[in-house]
Amino acid sequence: MASMATLFVKTPSPSPSFPKTFNTHFSPALKLSIPLASKPRTRQRLRISNALIEPDGGKLVELFVEESKKGEKKREAASLPRIKLSRIDLQWVHVISEGWSSPLRGFMRESEFLQTLHFNSLRLEDGSVVNMSVPIVLAIDDAQKRLIGESTRVALVDSDNNLIAILKDIEIYKHHKEERIARTWGTTAPGLPYVDQAITNAGNWLIGGDLEVIEPIKYHDGLDRFRLSPAELREEFTRRNADAVFAFQLRNPVHNGHALLMTDTRRRLLEMGYKNPILLLHPLGGYTKADDVPLSWRMKQHEKVLEDGVLDPETTVVSIFPSPMHYAGPTEVQWHAKARINAGANFYIVGRDPAGMGHPIEKRDLYDADHGKKVLSMAPGLERLNILPFKVAAYDKSQGKMAFFDPSRSQDFLFISGTKMRTLARNKENPPEGFMCPNGWKVLVDYYDSLVPADNGKVPEAVPV
Amino acid sequence: MASMATLFVKTPSPSPSFPKTFNTHFSPALKLSIPLASKPRTRQRLRISNALIEPDGGKLVELFVEESKKGEKKREAASLPRIKLSRIDLQWVHVISEGWSSPLRGFMRESEFLQTLHFNSLRLEDGSVVNMSVPIVLAIDDAQKRLIGESTRVALVDSDNNLIAILKDIEIYKHHKEERIARTWGTTAPGLPYVDQAITNAGNWLIGGDLEVIEPIKYHDGLDRFRLSPAELREEFTRRNADAVFAFQLRNPVHNGHALLMTDTRRRLLEMGYKNPILLLHPLGGYTKADDVPLSWRMKQHEKVLEDGVLDPETTVVSIFPSPMHYAGPTEVQWHAKARINAGANFYIVGRDPAGMGHPIEKRDLYDADHGKKVLSMAPGLERLNILPFKVAAYDKSQGKMAFFDPSRSQDFLFISGTKMRTLARNKENPPEGFMCPNGWKVLVDYYDSLVPADNGKVPEAVPV
Repeated sequence: MASMATLFVKTPSPSPSFPKTFNTHFSPALKLSIPLASKPRTRQRLRISNALIEPDGGKLVELFVEESKKGEKKREAASLPRIKLSRIDLQWVHVISEGWSSPLRGFMRESEFLQTLHFNSLRLEDGSVVNMSVPIVLAIDDAQKRLIGESTRVALVDSDNNLIAILKDIEIYKHHKEERIARTWGTTAPGLPYVDQAITNAGNWLIGGDLEVIEPIKYHDGLDRFRLSPAELREEFTRRNADAVFAFQLRNPVHNGHALLMTDTRRRLLEMGYKNPILLLHPLGGYTKADDVPLSWRMKQHEKVLEDGVLDPETTVVSIFPSPMHYAGPTEVQWHAKARINAGANFYIVGRDPAGMGHPIEKRDLYDADHGKKVLSMAPGLERLNILPFKVAAYDKSQGKMAFFDPSRSQDFLFISGTKMRTLARNKENPPEGFMCPNGWKVLVDYYDSLVPADNGKVPEAVPV
Repeated sequence: MASMATLFVKTPSPSPSFPKTFNTHFSPALKLSIPLASKPRTRQRLRISNALIEPDGGKLVELFVEESKKGEKKREAASLPRIKLSRIDLQWVHVISEGWSSPLRGFMRESEFLQTLHFNSLRLEDGSVVNMSVPIVLAIDDAQKRLIGESTRVALVDSDNNLIAILKDIEIYKHHKEERIARTWGTTAPGLPYVDQAITNAGNWLIGGDLEVIEPIKYHDGLDRFRLSPAELREEFTRRNADAVFAFQLRNPVHNGHALLMTDTRRRLLEMGYKNPILLLHPLGGYTKADDVPLSWRMKQHEKVLEDGVLDPETTVVSIFPSPMHYAGPTEVQWHAKARINAGANFYIVGRDPAGMGHPIEKRDLYDADHGKKVLSMAPGLERLNILPFKVAAYDKSQGKMAFFDPSRSQDFLFISGTKMRTLARNKENPPEGFMCPNGWKVLVDYYDSLVPADNGKVPEAVPV
């Protein structure tokens, strides 16, 4: 059973208005009584220390309309101007509504937008500061603005005109796109994926306000049950008596170098005196660029990694982080870390060049590979979070497995680049044994196999490392 | 005598290593005993309240080598690798050495540079935060980097190879120009004046470190005596028993609308209970773009404004702020305000579109005109500073003078744009009486008269409002 995957375990939903289905095919329920019963000595200590890190602003925001008021809200919404949400807009409603962006209570108004752009943080009324590095905004065009007129609230609907939420006490302000892009990405070069997808053709106005979400966001892609909210994750960590939660953000397949790092992190936390550190393996589930491995394939791959025993299901929670991806490097890594505080993580593993990518028009990386961890370690509002820099792992030929790079015997190490890995998977070749568990590798091979070659015979490039 | 200009009054220099010449032709010394003797009742109160606002970091930084150690430092410098400073670099040495950028002790190292770009602020060792929005950095090229080699210090020299300073405990890091520009200006459009002047052709490395300044920066332009350091300004404010200091940053001629605003601010401060608010009229003296009115002409114009009694010399200190101009709008206005805290100002007057300009390639303003004051009011590290938004003044035809705009009788008001003012001055025409004092206007006319028309018959455009 240790080799069976426990992606997560159902906990009672904290909000009756936000039910989730938890019949995972991945795992039976964890026998919760075991760790406590077998370690009675530590029980008291765990009880004492398992108060999780406080959410930003002191209280986790959840913005769902109570069941009893839904009818009333739906009737109200019927008379309001309607704004149709894009897929990415919906993902942000998801993010905001569950409190990943606590203490934000809706799409940003101008004062929050400006603070985000200039300071990567928000000052709260009590003078305290929380981190907020990525603008979470809703764009509308001139026609929509005219339609809204003097209304102080609008209805937000999905592409099928289903009511999603009411946005109230709205504020409409100019969408200074060039400035937003420059200050968020540190470049205005054409070809930034999120910009092309969500900004360039978006409206010239932004509309901020407070959200009242009628229906929790669902994607009906077979993966909704893995999308635990911060409140649900907190319940899960508490139920497991976690006294440390370390988050690993990823948008790529897990290889054994990653696994080594996560296992080693747990070992280090135990050495530091923590009794029950829990890993939050937290793949990003929102918008990603076309050449990233899609979420569904990544989830299959993560499942295999747990099934093959590469990570210990007893101390690992796998869940999906619903945010869209900006690829904004040092700016975005702060968002990735801050959101995990809200989900209860007090340790965050940061890699080389987090949220980075190649420069869209120059032959170089867009960001300095070290800036992400440096900026993260200095970011306002993240002082409470322990930053754990990624150790470099490579394939150790002398041991036939992934190991932390030892510069004193560098000739023993093989760095398997993303390009190399892609080429191998695409050609259905195997990487050196020990690089990735065989079943996980097979998922990757199957993914590339599933791609229909374009006219030029090339398949899209994925960046799996 | 009330109509005579008192630009400032010499105070004993706080640092014997940093003498200044104060034989101003503008004014006799102020008779200091008068205000105190004539208002004995307020004397105690003034004594109590005239502790000026603390500099950032608690202590005003001054980085001059003591006279007794100069010989030793010069000998040391002779053996060090040399970096030649541009005129703008020299202006920054000036700024840093006098403590305008306190608590900065030299050109930024990478951690300060990154915090400036991402957070517009620096976290100090005690956890407190000071504002720092504009990178103060020194660029070097590959050849200079090679020359420096393993040295931990370098000598900084001016264009004539005169030793200016030693930069010690140096750190060399990459000059990510595009990212610097995007995050500072919110655009990377070609044609930003400071970028063209100081960044585009600068080296690909930045060198940070602590400054030991051998010789205070002098410009020998007849205006050095007006360049009071923060310490000297603080002495002057203390000597005048100021219990409030309100700073007015400008890089343009003063018209009667400005004067009205400054006079009105003093009136408001008196109403608030302050007994002796002092105006720091603080023209920017470093690099400005080619079509701005040059410092020497502006100083002549300011002199006339004081001579004509438009501003009260008894309650006004005119001095030159040595910083170069970025034209970086909401980002730069924070720097302008923060530097004035270090000089003792606890009130800052912020106008419409501060430090703004036209977009270099699009037909619009680069910044939203309201963002400057909004960003300033929310900026980390500026919480102690009182922000005074500019009231809109215009020419009131019914009164024949500049007055605060009254929307209930908007037809009475004439807005005299910068373009209009330039056209009038260039054509040696007069503006409506009461727009600017006649002698001040004459300076402006003389300035345009002095310009040699270019081949196309056009003279450079100045932006005097």
